Amino acid sequence: MMLTTSEAPRRLGVLGGMGPLAGAAFALRIVQLTPASADQDHIPVLLCNDPAIPDRSTAGMGGGPSPLPAMIRGLKTLVAGQVDCIAIPCNTAHLWFDELQAESSAPLLHIVESVIQDLRRQGVTRGKVGILGTPATIAMGLYQRHLRLAGYEPIEPSHDDVHRLCVPAIAAVKRNEVERAFAPARESIQHLSNQGANAVVLGCTELPLAVPACRRAEFDVPLTDSIDALARAAIQLLRPASQGRYR
Amino acid sequence: MMLTTSEAPRRLGVLGGMGPLAGAAFALRIVQLTPASADQDHIPVLLCNDPAIPDRSTAGMGGGPSPLPAMIRGLKTLVAGQVDCIAIPCNTAHLWFDELQAESSAPLLHIVESVIQDLRRQGVTRGKVGILGTPATIAMGLYQRHLRLAGYEPIEPSHDDVHRLCVPAIAAVKRNEVERAFAPARESIQHLSNQGANAVVLGCTELPLAVPACRRAEFDVPLTDSIDALARAAIQLLRPASQGRYR
Repeated sequence: MMLTTSEAPRRLGVLGGMGPLAGAAFALRIVQLTPASADQDHIPVLLCNDPAIPDRSTAGMGGGPSPLPAMIRGLKTLVAGQVDCIAIPCNTAHLWFDELQAESSAPLLHIVESVIQDLRRQGVTRGKVGILGTPATIAMGLYQRHLRLAGYEPIEPSHDDVHRLCVPAIAAVKRNEVERAFAPARESIQHLSNQGANAVVLGCTELPLAVPACRRAEFDVPLTDSIDALARAAIQLLRPASQGRYR
Repeated sequence: MMLTTSEAPRRLGVLGGMGPLAGAAFALRIVQLTPASADQDHIPVLLCNDPAIPDRSTAGMGGGPSPLPAMIRGLKTLVAGQVDCIAIPCNTAHLWFDELQAESSAPLLHIVESVIQDLRRQGVTRGKVGILGTPATIAMGLYQRHLRLAGYEPIEPSHDDVHRLCVPAIAAVKRNEVERAFAPARESIQHLSNQGANAVVLGCTELPLAVPACRRAEFDVPLTDSIDALARAAIQLLRPASQGRYR
């Protein structure tokens, strides 16, 4: 869906809670990445941070209840709150993107498109791109298809890396033990870098929290943060005049 | 208003945007301070982060439009979203507390009561307590009255300190220049400590962002963070079983 400047929406809805730390961190990054001189310069945000939504990866792998009804309830709450567009700071939730868009009168931003925009912003325009994420995100090929369409060569982590490194890193963030998440996340990034990745996508919104901004200089490969990528895309849509003024 | 455990509400509404960084940071602290082993253990939050609400301190000093109609609209959005209680992470907004409670069918937490609970949690049960905040919060005596009722002796910053130190620190946070906020905030804290304060209340929700947790050990006086105090009060109400397990 293309939105021109004159149609630019004003109030951002955020379907969060997947996980709750990622949802709240996304709301924070919207504020921190918006050029502002006073409160009134910032973007109005309605955040529905509903942590009771059933686990997306478990459902995506066929092993648990669908998160779709709870996600649709959240969208309805946001639409009733008169939001003009909606961001969903959860990569795995985008496995249900078409069903969610069909139920929402407000347009949804797509996190994978935002990440691809962010790769280009960072100067990564071709070649191998490593993907990290939940088992369902990797197994269902959420990023692989979009990356190929955009001219990249996706590299997946091994099954062992997904389960031994990504899953524990994500689970530690969900337990508020972000310090314990760093070591496995670092190892999974290093493995993709060793395979020649020109960039690595932190393709689960818990992973940017596992690898805080202050430690990203330790890596020999650029990282794309799916929380920040989605926030930048939302700001670009809602504050087109601020484009290029991101911190 | 007393709520017993059996009546404990389930979904927290947050009337934010005053400022927007404080609103988002409050949502983040709700997650970080809740004991959890998975997403589903966290508290459902609906955050209305509306930065367009007219400036509370200017209005409180009689110099600008009232924020009350915009705040009431935000409360209505939250109530329509079926929240069970509401937190307002803005101290100055509490100058309108009675009018806001009268317009909300969901009970409101009071930030000043939360701060007094936090003073007691930190072992500060009597004596001099310094207050920092916006010109309206100080001039209208928001904290002074509650502190006296709770048996403390409030100490106010000088008129010069409010305008030369607190106001620029708060404005820097609202501009996303949190690093520039630290020096004036530190000086204002030091002046209250020099007057014998047993604790200093960061009584504007921008001030805890000006003085990040990692730098609080530099002070010779305990600080009470009005964002964290309100978050702890909300968690205690919504997750009574987790009392005493705060990180």
